[in-house]
This record gives sequence, C-alpha cells and structure tokens, in this order.
Amino acid sequence: MGNGINKKKQLKLATFLSGFGSNIAGWRHPGTPSDAAVNLDLYIEVAKIAEAGKFDFLFNADSAYITKDSTPYFLSRFEPATVLSAIAAVTKNLGLVGTFSTSYSEPFTTARQLASLDKLSGGRAGWNAVTSALEGVARNFSHDTLMEHGLRYRVASEYIEIVKGLWDSWEDDAFVRDKESGQYVDLDKMHTLDHKGEFFSVQGPLNIERSPQGRPIVFQAGGSEEGRDLAAREADGIYSRYTDYEPARAFSEDIKRRAVAYGRSPGDILIFPAITPIVGETKEEADYKYEQTSKYVDIDLAIQYMSRFFSFFNFKQFPLDEPLPELGDIGKNSFKSTAELYLKMAKDENLTLRQLALRVISPKGNYIGTPVQVADNIQSLFETGVVDGFVLSPHVNPEGLRDFVEQVVPILQDRGVFRADYESSTLRGNLGLTYPENRYTKARREQSASATLQA
Amino acid sequence: MGNGINKKKQLKLATFLSGFGSNIAGWRHPGTPSDAAVNLDLYIEVAKIAEAGKFDFLFNADSAYITKDSTPYFLSRFEPATVLSAIAAVTKNLGLVGTFSTSYSEPFTTARQLASLDKLSGGRAGWNAVTSALEGVARNFSHDTLMEHGLRYRVASEYIEIVKGLWDSWEDDAFVRDKESGQYVDLDKMHTLDHKGEFFSVQGPLNIERSPQGRPIVFQAGGSEEGRDLAAREADGIYSRYTDYEPARAFSEDIKRRAVAYGRSPGDILIFPAITPIVGETKEEADYKYEQTSKYVDIDLAIQYMSRFFSFFNFKQFPLDEPLPELGDIGKNSFKSTAELYLKMAKDENLTLRQLALRVISPKGNYIGTPVQVADNIQSLFETGVVDGFVLSPHVNPEGLRDFVEQVVPILQDRGVFRADYESSTLRGNLGLTYPENRYTKARREQSASATLQA
Repeated sequence: MGNGINKKKQLKLATFLSGFGSNIAGWRHPGTPSDAAVNLDLYIEVAKIAEAGKFDFLFNADSAYITKDSTPYFLSRFEPATVLSAIAAVTKNLGLVGTFSTSYSEPFTTARQLASLDKLSGGRAGWNAVTSALEGVARNFSHDTLMEHGLRYRVASEYIEIVKGLWDSWEDDAFVRDKESGQYVDLDKMHTLDHKGEFFSVQGPLNIERSPQGRPIVFQAGGSEEGRDLAAREADGIYSRYTDYEPARAFSEDIKRRAVAYGRSPGDILIFPAITPIVGETKEEADYKYEQTSKYVDIDLAIQYMSRFFSFFNFKQFPLDEPLPELGDIGKNSFKSTAELYLKMAKDENLTLRQLALRVISPKGNYIGTPVQVADNIQSLFETGVVDGFVLSPHVNPEGLRDFVEQVVPILQDRGVFRADYESSTLRGNLGLTYPENRYTKARREQSASATLQA
Repeated sequence: MGNGINKKKQLKLATFLSGFGSNIAGWRHPGTPSDAAVNLDLYIEVAKIAEAGKFDFLFNADSAYITKDSTPYFLSRFEPATVLSAIAAVTKNLGLVGTFSTSYSEPFTTARQLASLDKLSGGRAGWNAVTSALEGVARNFSHDTLMEHGLRYRVASEYIEIVKGLWDSWEDDAFVRDKESGQYVDLDKMHTLDHKGEFFSVQGPLNIERSPQGRPIVFQAGGSEEGRDLAAREADGIYSRYTDYEPARAFSEDIKRRAVAYGRSPGDILIFPAITPIVGETKEEADYKYEQTSKYVDIDLAIQYMSRFFSFFNFKQFPLDEPLPELGDIGKNSFKSTAELYLKMAKDENLTLRQLALRVISPKGNYIGTPVQVADNIQSLFETGVVDGFVLSPHVNPEGLRDFVEQVVPILQDRGVFRADYESSTLRGNLGLTYPENRYTKARREQSASATLQA
C-alpha cells in the first residue's frame, strides 16, 4: 500500500451529468439532441467520453420540485438512482455520484439504493447528501412547509450517521459462499444497527453486503455554516463555488480546520469547485464559442433560473437595466450560501438585474481560451493546493465535454498532473481515499490487540 | 389499431429476477456463480436469455427486512430500481417489473423512480405494488409495529391513486422542443395533482415527462380479499399462485368479476401464475434434475424459508417427521394468502413439518418433463383462458431459464402460441394492453366534443 505515498498528488476530474449542459438553452445547440435531458443515449455518450478521459466521476445534481417557472432541464429529467445504475452497466471505472436528499426520505432506502448501485458497479458509487432547499418540495411529501435550515441540517446529520451505520451491517468477509461445505454466510459478521435517535429509529441490518470500496463515497454540497460543518465531519468530498485563489484558499482552510477539529486528517476531505471550460484554437475562437452558447439564452428564462436559488423570489418586479436594490436575506432558507454569493456579487459590482442573471446563467470565469490556457489555469489553481480537482459543468453536452477531453486532458496528462490511466476500478481507489474499516471488524481487532497486550 | 383484434391471443412469458434461482441452495449448483444474488453479470445474462426468448418481462420481487433466519438470497441482494435500470441499458424490448412497497415510502419518489426507469428504458417499466408483509420491516422505517393488513391496503389504495395521478402530470405532447422557435414546452399541458387525502398530501407535478407507454404497467401480488380487490381496481396484471385448472379458474373468475364491478373490461387485467419448469430429454432425466437441484437443500434452511411467510413463526418447536398440529391463523398479518394456502395444503394432505417445508421450497408441479410435455402443460392451461401467461421461477439460474428458452420456447413458437418476435418496443405493447389516455387530455377532448355537439 505504501507505494502511493511518494507519488505526486494528482488532479481529480469530474463532470456534471445534466442533459444538455449548464447553458439553459443548450438544448437548442446544433450538436445536442433537443431531448438531451431525458435521452439515455446522450447520457451514455457523456459517460463514455468522461471515461475515455479517465475522469474520476460523474456528478448528478438533483431536486424534486418544479413550477411553471422552472427552466427546461428541471422540468423533465432522470432520477439519479435509475440513470446512474443504467450508466453503471455500460462503464467500468467511472465513479457515479448521485444526489439524494436527507429530507422527506427514509435512510434505510437511501442506504440500500446507494449500496446496491455500489455493489452492481463494482465499487463506484458516491452520495451527494443534500437537505432539499426548495420551499415547495415539502408539498410533494405531505408537509406544508420546508423545515428551517438549521433543523434540516440536524436531520441530515442523524440521517448520514444512520446510513453509514447501515453500510457497516456486514463485515467485509461475511459472505463465505463455499459451495463445497455449503456455508453461505458467517452470521457473526452480520450486525444490527439498533439506532434510536431524535428523528429516526432504524434497526437494520441492511439487506446487501459491502462493495469493493467498503461503502460509497460521501459528498456534501452545502456551503453554509451548517453545510460546511457537516461536510467537515462526515464527507469525503465537498463541492465548492470558489475558483479564484483567495476565496478558494479561505474555503479550503476553513474546511480543513473544521475537519481537524473533528479528529480527521486534512487530506480526508477533497474539494471540488465547478468550472465551465470552453476551448478554441485561439482565445478569440473560445470567446466566440462562449458568445454562441449564450446567444440562445432568453433573459426572462435566465431570471427565472436565478430565482430558483431564492425560493422563487420575484425578481421581475425590478427594472432590467438598473442596479438592483439592497435585497436583505431573501435566500436565507433556500440555497443559502449560493444566494449569499450572488447577492454579494450584485452589491460589490453594482450589477443590474440583467447583468446578475446572465452571470448566474453563464459564468465566464478563467477557463475560456486555448487548450494550453485552460490547462494552465487548472494546473495553477490545483498546484496551490487549495483544491483537489474540478467538476466540469460544460455549457453544452456532449460538445463541451468532448472538446475538453480531446484537447485539455492530454496536456494535463503530458505534464504529469493528471492520470494516463485509472489506478483502480473503484471510485475510492481513484480518489486516493482510505478504505473505511468496518466498525465491528475494528472493534474486534482492537479488542484482540488489547487482549494480546494484557496476556 | 384494429389489426390486433382478429389475431389469436398469445401467451405471455416472464421470469423472476432472483439471483441464483428459487432453490434456496441454488448458489451451490455447479453452473451458477456462488455470488449470483449480487452478481450483475449474472443478472445481465439472465436478462439477455429472456430477451432472446422474446419474454415479456423480468419480475423482481423484493422486501426490506432480514434476520439471522433469512435464507441466502434475502440476506444480500440488489434493490429493484437500481438493478432494473442497469439491465435497461443493455436490453431493448424486455419489460422490467420491480417491486416497490406502498408502506414506509413516499409516493412522489416511487412515481419518479418508476417513471425515470420507464423513460430511460423507452417504455418498459412495470410496478409490482406491495404493502410489505414482514412484521419487522416497520422497525427499519422508524415505526414500532407493522400496520395491520386492512390499514396497509387503505394506504396502498391511496398511494397508487397518487402515483397514477403524478404519472399524468404531463400530457403526451407537452414537450415541444422546437430548436428553431425556441419553444421547449407547452405549459398548458403541465398539471399539478394537488392531492389531499387521508394519508398523504402531494402537490406535484412530477419532474419527468411521460414515456412511450404512457405510464408504467401496474402489477399487484397480494392474493387476500383486499389484495384482489385492489388489483381488480388498479392493476394491469396480477401474480397468482394457482397452476391447477380448478383453483386457477376460480381465481380468474373472481378477479374478472371484481374488475367488471369497477367498470373495467375483463381483459384489462392479466393473470400470471408462477411455475418452476425443469426439462430433460426424458421425463426421468427431468425428474433426476429435480432431485439434483433439491439435494443441496438443508431442511433447517427450508423451515427458515417457510417461516418467513408466517412472520418468522417458530416451526422448529414441532417434530420434523410427525404431522403438523392445527396452527390457527398464524399468517394473518403477514403474507396472508400465501400462508393460508400452505396451511390448507398441510391440513388437507396431513403433511409433516419436513414435507411441508420441502413443498414450499421446491414445488414440483406439472412442469417437470420433456420439452414437449412442459409445452403441452403450459399450452393446455393457457388455452382454457384462466391464465394469460406464466412467470418462470427457475430452480437455478441461468441453467433453468436457458433450458426453457432453448427447448420449450421454440415449441410454443412453432405452435403459434407464443410470439416469434416482439410486437412492440414497450411492455404495454407486448402485453397487448390499451394505451392509457392522459386524464387532462381526455377531459379536454371530451369538453371539446361536447362543445361541438352543442354547437
């Protein structure tokens, strides 16, 4: 196992699995099927491009509430457990990270579906644990109102603890399956959880064994105080919004400091900001491509999209081309940290409604340029050590991802920054994360070590 | 549409998706991988054999509670939404029917996962709606005790109504996706459900459009009064336990009578009993194969398996080789109708504990013999009109299924009883079931027809 220690730490790459891409009008792009949001062939194509590019994982965001104001992709899209399982059957090494909410669902079912995806994919599943930020989501699940932000995180914390507990129901070698002797299982290695907490009581055991990566990787995407704290305690990876050095450094320091306070090592949690790269033969060609992908965007739709981060706050009451007024804390019970980021941006730069909506919909960032320029910017932020990798959010699929894989990935590989081939068949192995010892195996090992010492 | 009317009604075939097969010791069989219960390659092999045999669908049973007394397959197996989605990616015509409980889950989530499977498979999803019969299952879902049988069915009834309502959230042609004009959707064809009932309140709409079969096929597997009634009102297919003519006829008459009472046509609900065929070159060879598949069975394990249908009732208190005493209604709150059937069998035939357990574990039935004998027995029951098809429950996989597909299916095809090729790419199309018109489309059509009449 020690041969990884002296190896230079490598960049990790992922891409969002999001139909036609992050541009809300991406479905109109000539190279994109108009039904990309629910087209399995397109999803499989994206997965195969990502796997050819030796990406670590696909990241499938999710939510469960729409209104007439929702933008195209949200109106009709696949559910994560199903689409990731379909992709598992036609890929070999690519990690599959799905978003499952800890509000309005049962930890037993979530633990089981993720463990099943993990087992059937040979150890490639990940869970992005979210708390559901849309006010209306409660009304699809027999509740009148959304739990407030702090309460949602208390539920989430207990929920994740239960799910991890269920994932330890079986020790690694519990299933003997000896045809000769007829022994199928060693029942001493099956464990009930018997959890009785503030919000849930769950007996267990889970009715599926462990996978080659022990248990699925856990991600957390919330950037609020509570989200950061939960991530620092429980997550293997955290999604970040910061791609400029200074805020990225501050975020990383904050997360690592919290992780250490929970008794973890700083390297136990990986940080992944999202970027939207666009490459061209020249910087001008890349900029032109950016303009092209934005030209279909309807400003009303862009405002609608933005309003989703603010519990569908009515932005249309303000004039399009005048600086926005002070808006207070309108995002506080929804996508809290994202909303705060946008409000700060509007205030700092004195943006109009139109400008803010276009920034939200079509972020420009430092990743538009020639393949070498994009590779340079990725490498330089990565080498400061404040991020572990990036989640791509291509403007349009599959073109945006394919351009990156064909033109940027080889440069990063040549420079030794990114892998030339997979190190492992599991997501955990490729991310370089430690195998989690089963809690009961550990207890037995420790007990036996202590007995030896006393003997 | 009329060209199907004069065609002879054809047999429908399905097979259980159950790892190593229905023999509890099937994992020891030489041709079966010992980890078959959680081996995706084996599941895909089974699916491909079934599809090569032009089967209508795979049927994936399920439950969510295990104890140390559970038999091998139950201890560690895939969850239906995940494994069926994986299979969807590598098959083209085969229907994919999964079991999802209406107890301890959210109708929005179930509706969404099934609709997602339906859409990504191109219209091949089915839902076997069950109420969870194992007493202990409640303790995995923050409840102390299982809801009693009648209450479970009241919940199920409302739940299915909600799920079907959510599946009508979008009319068939709601998604326009015109790249030229930029119109993605016709929002007049998006509908909220606004359900407020005794057990659930669900607003909607569902965040995924309809599939080519309109909505997934609904199955029901409970044979109790309440189960039959629910099936007759809501289901497209019902699983049955009767393969002898007289009880099969009585069951069929009962189900069709109930369906008609609910204003449905008798052909709206298809009946599928399970059979366990074993073929050999001679009857003797088939019998020998049966003995072989049973020889690994451990009598203790067989009794454990049986006890699952009786809320893990302790049968081991009785002597193995003496007739069982009168046992009263020990199955009444669990797998009610199955339990009653077994108790009746024990009483009628004065069975010992050993005999009953072996009957339960390894039913012999009329489907062991030469391929022609098995085909004869299938055809003769089918042609009485009391069943619409069969769900195979092979003793061991993949051998049992492969033997059937290679040796029995061609005979049924030659006789014109079973299809030579798929009629449709959807499960609904292959089952010959009517396309369900969206309720809002129907209302609009009826309103417009009535306006025309009045004009």
